[in-house]
Amino acid sequence: MASRDGFSWTEEDGLKPGVPCIGAIQPPSNLTSAHDVTYDVIVAGAGYCGLTAARDAAVAGLKVLLLEGRDRIGGRSWSSNIGGYPFEMGGTWVFWGQPNVWREIMRYQMQDELEVSYDFSRGINEYHISNGRTTQRFTHDEEDKIVESGLRKLVNVDGAYGKNVIPFSHTGKFSSEAIKLDSMSVADRLAEIQDSLTPNERLAVESFVLLCSGGTLETTSFFEFLHWWALCAYSYEGCIDYLVKYKFRGGQSSFAIRFFQEALATGNLTYAFNSPIATVRNTTAGVEVTTRQAERFKARRMISAIPLNVLNNVTFDPPLPQGKQAAASIGHVNQCVKVHAEVRDRDLRSYTGISYPHNGLFYALGDGETPSGNTHIVAFGGQHNHFEPDEDIEATKKALQGLTPMNIERIVFHNWSKDEFAKGAWLVMNSSYLIQHLR
Amino acid sequence: MASRDGFSWTEEDGLKPGVPCIGAIQPPSNLTSAHDVTYDVIVAGAGYCGLTAARDAAVAGLKVLLLEGRDRIGGRSWSSNIGGYPFEMGGTWVFWGQPNVWREIMRYQMQDELEVSYDFSRGINEYHISNGRTTQRFTHDEEDKIVESGLRKLVNVDGAYGKNVIPFSHTGKFSSEAIKLDSMSVADRLAEIQDSLTPNERLAVESFVLLCSGGTLETTSFFEFLHWWALCAYSYEGCIDYLVKYKFRGGQSSFAIRFFQEALATGNLTYAFNSPIATVRNTTAGVEVTTRQAERFKARRMISAIPLNVLNNVTFDPPLPQGKQAAASIGHVNQCVKVHAEVRDRDLRSYTGISYPHNGLFYALGDGETPSGNTHIVAFGGQHNHFEPDEDIEATKKALQGLTPMNIERIVFHNWSKDEFAKGAWLVMNSSYLIQHLR
Repeated sequence: MASRDGFSWTEEDGLKPGVPCIGAIQPPSNLTSAHDVTYDVIVAGAGYCGLTAARDAAVAGLKVLLLEGRDRIGGRSWSSNIGGYPFEMGGTWVFWGQPNVWREIMRYQMQDELEVSYDFSRGINEYHISNGRTTQRFTHDEEDKIVESGLRKLVNVDGAYGKNVIPFSHTGKFSSEAIKLDSMSVADRLAEIQDSLTPNERLAVESFVLLCSGGTLETTSFFEFLHWWALCAYSYEGCIDYLVKYKFRGGQSSFAIRFFQEALATGNLTYAFNSPIATVRNTTAGVEVTTRQAERFKARRMISAIPLNVLNNVTFDPPLPQGKQAAASIGHVNQCVKVHAEVRDRDLRSYTGISYPHNGLFYALGDGETPSGNTHIVAFGGQHNHFEPDEDIEATKKALQGLTPMNIERIVFHNWSKDEFAKGAWLVMNSSYLIQHLR
Repeated sequence: MASRDGFSWTEEDGLKPGVPCIGAIQPPSNLTSAHDVTYDVIVAGAGYCGLTAARDAAVAGLKVLLLEGRDRIGGRSWSSNIGGYPFEMGGTWVFWGQPNVWREIMRYQMQDELEVSYDFSRGINEYHISNGRTTQRFTHDEEDKIVESGLRKLVNVDGAYGKNVIPFSHTGKFSSEAIKLDSMSVADRLAEIQDSLTPNERLAVESFVLLCSGGTLETTSFFEFLHWWALCAYSYEGCIDYLVKYKFRGGQSSFAIRFFQEALATGNLTYAFNSPIATVRNTTAGVEVTTRQAERFKARRMISAIPLNVLNNVTFDPPLPQGKQAAASIGHVNQCVKVHAEVRDRDLRSYTGISYPHNGLFYALGDGETPSGNTHIVAFGGQHNHFEPDEDIEATKKALQGLTPMNIERIVFHNWSKDEFAKGAWLVMNSSYLIQHLR
C-alpha cells in the first residue's frame, strides 16, 4: 500500500512523490450505490480525532460515514514503512503521561510496542551546538545541563517554575496571571531574561522552543510554551519523556489502523477516502455534506475533525460563527519542516545537535537504525528560516549537512505547509490567540 | 440516601453503623418480573471496574445486568457526605498522570472539580515524627527532604532510581532483574540499606511504604513498591502528585455516580443491589449466576469485577483454574485502617505527621475544613499494629491522639478488613506473588 502523501529521495530514483503506507486503505471506499441513506453521523476527517469519533460512534451502534480527503488514515500522524522500517512523517512520540493517548494504547494492548528513539550506548555520543561560526561538542549530560538550566530560567515566571501560574495543567480554565502571559510571545519573555542566559543556553532554549512550536519566537505564545511545560510535568526530564522519547516500533500507522479496524468490525462504518468535503449545509432534518466530486451525503449530525488551518476551505451554510471563522483564518503558527535522512554514518546513532539560528534545519537526533544498518537521522525546521524540502532537494541536503556532515542514502519527508488538508503541523497557538479565540 | 457501610461516631450519638452516601442507589433494583431474560452480559461488582465494564457494554448496545452485593456503587472508593462535606471512606486521590482515571474524568468534564488536600498556608504548618519516646517537629520543607532522601536510597537499586529496572512503568512484562526484586520484601531491602539511612529517614520511609501498602514491611513486595515509585514518575514529588494531592471536591461518589447514570441512560442497564453472587455456572448457552437470595440470572457472558480477596467466596462451576484459586486464596496484603476525625483544632489544617512504629495509626494529615470550620484529619494504619476501629472506639480515639493531641467532634470510617465484599483495601501484592501468580 502506498499514499500520494510524502516524498522520498535516493540517488538512484531521485525525488519521488508518494511513499509506502500501511494506513492507505484499500478499497478506498465501501460505499454502496444506495445514496439516499441518512447516517446517524458523518465524521469529517480520519486523523486520530476523527478516527476516535468514528469508532466510538460505530461501537455505540450509530451508523457512521467517515469522509477523508486523503487516501489514508492518520492525518498529521502517519508513518511510511520503507523496507520494514517506519519513518514518522508527522506526530511520532507518545508517553503514558498523556492520558488520552495512553488509554487508546492500552485499549489496543500496544504498551509493549514502544521503543526509545535515542540510543546513547554507541557511536559519537555527542551534542553539537553550531551557531554558524563554530561548532562546540558536548556530552549528553552536558546537553541536559545546558537545556535544563536555560528552560528553567525561561519558565520561572512565578518562583515555582510555572506551577503557581498553571496549577492544574489539564484544565481549560486559566488564571488572569496565565492569561497575561498569553499576550506575550516567547521573544518577549526571552527579552525579560536575556541577561541571565548564557549564550549556549540561549541557543539551546530558542531552538527547543522552535522545535516545539514550528513557528518563530515572535509568533509563539509564551503561555502556550508554558502550558506545554506544565503538561510535561514542569520539568526538563518530563519534556524529554513526553515529547521525544518513546515511539511505536511499527510506526504511528500501526496504531491508527487499529482504530479503523475496530470501527469497521462493528459493521456500522461506511467510509470514503479521496473525498474532500466542499460544503456542509444545515437542514431541518440534519446535515447535508457535499464533496468536491459533488457526491452528497445526509446525516442527523456531523462531527468535524477538520484541522484549524483548513477549516475555512469548507463552505458552511449557514456560515460558522464569526469568532470561529476569525480563529480559523488566523490559524495556528506551526509550519514544522521535518526531514528524515538515512545515512551511512553509524556513529551518528548517538548524535543530537542544533544548528541555529542560521540553518534551515535547526535540530536533529539519531532516531533509529535501519534494516541495512544505516543510521536514521530526524531533523526539524519551522517557520524560522522556512523552506520547502521538495522544491530543491540539493538545498534540503545542504540543510541536513548543515547540522553535521553525513553520507545521505535516502531522504523521506512530508511537506506539511503545502499540504492542502493540513496547511501546517500540530496546533501551536500564536500570542493572544487563547484570550481571543478559545471561547 | 445512606449506605449500610461505614461507621460514624459523635459524642451525642455514639458509634453508629451506616453513613450518608450519594452512591446508594434508589430504588435498589430495576429488575422486572420477567426473569427468563438472557442478558448479553452480567457484570459482577459495581466498583469502578464493574461500573466501567457495565457502562461500556451498555453504551455498545449490549443488554447488561449489573449485580452488586452492597447497597451502593463505588466498591472500595466511596465518600460519605456529612453536612455537605465528603469524607473519603476508601480510594481518594486522583491525578492526570493516571491515564485510565484521567480519561474518565475528562469524559465527565470533571477536571475542574478537583482540589488540593493539604493547605500549608495557615495553622501550625508542621510535620511531626513521633517514635513513641519523643516527638520532633519539622517544617514541611524539612519533611520533603527527609522523606525524599530516604525514598531515593530505598529505590536506588540500579544507580538510576529504578529507571533501569523498570524502564516502562505501565508494561506487564518485567525484566529478570525486576522479577528478582519481587522475591524480596521491603524489609529485605531495608536490611540492605540500613547503614545508609538516618533514624528519621528510616521512620519516614517505613511509614511511607506502609501508608502505600497497608501491609507490613515483611509482607510487602519490594518490587511492588518500586513499581508504585515508577508509576509515580520515579520521584518523591511524583509520589505526592500521584498519591495524596488531588481529590474530588464532591467526593469519589460524585464521580462514580456519573458512570452509573450514563449506563442507565442508555436504557440497556438492568441492575440489582443487595444481590451478592453465590454461584457462577458455565452452561452450554453461556453463564448462569445465582445470588445468595437464590435469584437466578442467565447471560451469554459474565465479567467479574469481584475483588481478589473475596473471589473465593463465589462458587464457580466448573471451578476456577487452580492458579487463580491459589492466587485468590493467598490474596493481597492490604489491611489499611483509614480513620477520619473532625477536630476543633483549626491549626491542624497544616499538620502532617507520623507516629511510628508504636501507634495504631501511623500517618495523618490535615485533609480539609468542614462546613463548621473544623479541621478534617485523615489517619492511616494497616496490618502493622492492626486494630478494628469499630470494636473499641476509645482505642480508636487514643490512636488518633497518639498522632497529635486533637479535640475530636466526629469520627468516620469504613472497616475494610471486616468488609465481606472486600476483605482489605486496594490491591498490594505480597513478595513473590507477581512471579507466581501474575500469569
